[in-house]
Amino acid sequence: MPAVTPLERTLDFLARTPDVLRALLAGLEDPWVRCDEGPGTYSPYDVVGHLIHGEDTDWVTRTEHILAHGEAKPFVPFDREGMRARDAVASLAELLELFARHRAQSLARIRALGLTPADLERRGRHPELGMVTLGQLLSTWVVHDLAHLGQVARVLAKVRGPEIGPWRAYFRVLSDRT
Amino acid sequence: MPAVTPLERTLDFLARTPDVLRALLAGLEDPWVRCDEGPGTYSPYDVVGHLIHGEDTDWVTRTEHILAHGEAKPFVPFDREGMRARDAVASLAELLELFARHRAQSLARIRALGLTPADLERRGRHPELGMVTLGQLLSTWVVHDLAHLGQVARVLAKVRGPEIGPWRAYFRVLSDRT
Repeated sequence: MPAVTPLERTLDFLARTPDVLRALLAGLEDPWVRCDEGPGTYSPYDVVGHLIHGEDTDWVTRTEHILAHGEAKPFVPFDREGMRARDAVASLAELLELFARHRAQSLARIRALGLTPADLERRGRHPELGMVTLGQLLSTWVVHDLAHLGQVARVLAKVRGPEIGPWRAYFRVLSDRT
Repeated sequence: MPAVTPLERTLDFLARTPDVLRALLAGLEDPWVRCDEGPGTYSPYDVVGHLIHGEDTDWVTRTEHILAHGEAKPFVPFDREGMRARDAVASLAELLELFARHRAQSLARIRALGLTPADLERRGRHPELGMVTLGQLLSTWVVHDLAHLGQVARVLAKVRGPEIGPWRAYFRVLSDRT
């Protein structure tokens, strides 16, 4: 296997997420994918919308912001409910396709920047967290995908939890985040 | 969308997991997929092996056991380390293909049984948990897939956790199961 740079490893991974979510969610019935874990939490449907919102306003925007402004100007805060505007109009199937398209565009924009290892050390300012680097931002994008994938799996599992009788005792995931 | 029976919903979901894991893991480097959360825990690689072992010794075997023996004879206990025998010889790519093949065979065997709604109420005896139903067993198969998918996402996230600097504060997944 050829040596892979940290940036390539990140971009390779990020390219997977639309396919993972499509394989997991496409065609599942609405009552399953619209369940969440209570007020202020995300359903699997919400997660896909949230990831699209991140493509549109977060990761690439902040990458360009660091390159343009460094630490001089903090990022615009990310709106964690920003995806709700699409809720009334888009089906899950539409969101999955939109996410795949926007993610591909994001990765093309990142690649077009021709980032060097030195660029990954460049600093920006997060409105809450303070000083961060571009490398941290890009790795956070990966962890963020994985955190939401885990959330989707957990929420889907919880919907089926009442069907498993005594086996419930074996699955800690069913009582996580409750 | 046509009405879907609980059994069809279960089989449809179970057919997805090999594609989900392939999209997520195929081609990822060994140091990433071989990480676990400490002694006695599973790496993503281990999870795929464990799922194969479940196809071979757990879900279909227990379904047939319930149909043959009811509550008269408990299931053979499942070996949670049973996948280790393949560790030295199979690559992740091989395990992913093996899982896809064995899962497809499992689903074909379940479909061939022509299970009725009444069959799903049939009872068996779990060696630790006592009385269970066939319907509970099949739903547990789904929850089990999802629990391990969440585990894979969590372990992959933890490997990248040290790269994200102060963003760590936003990701509870990084301190789950520690």
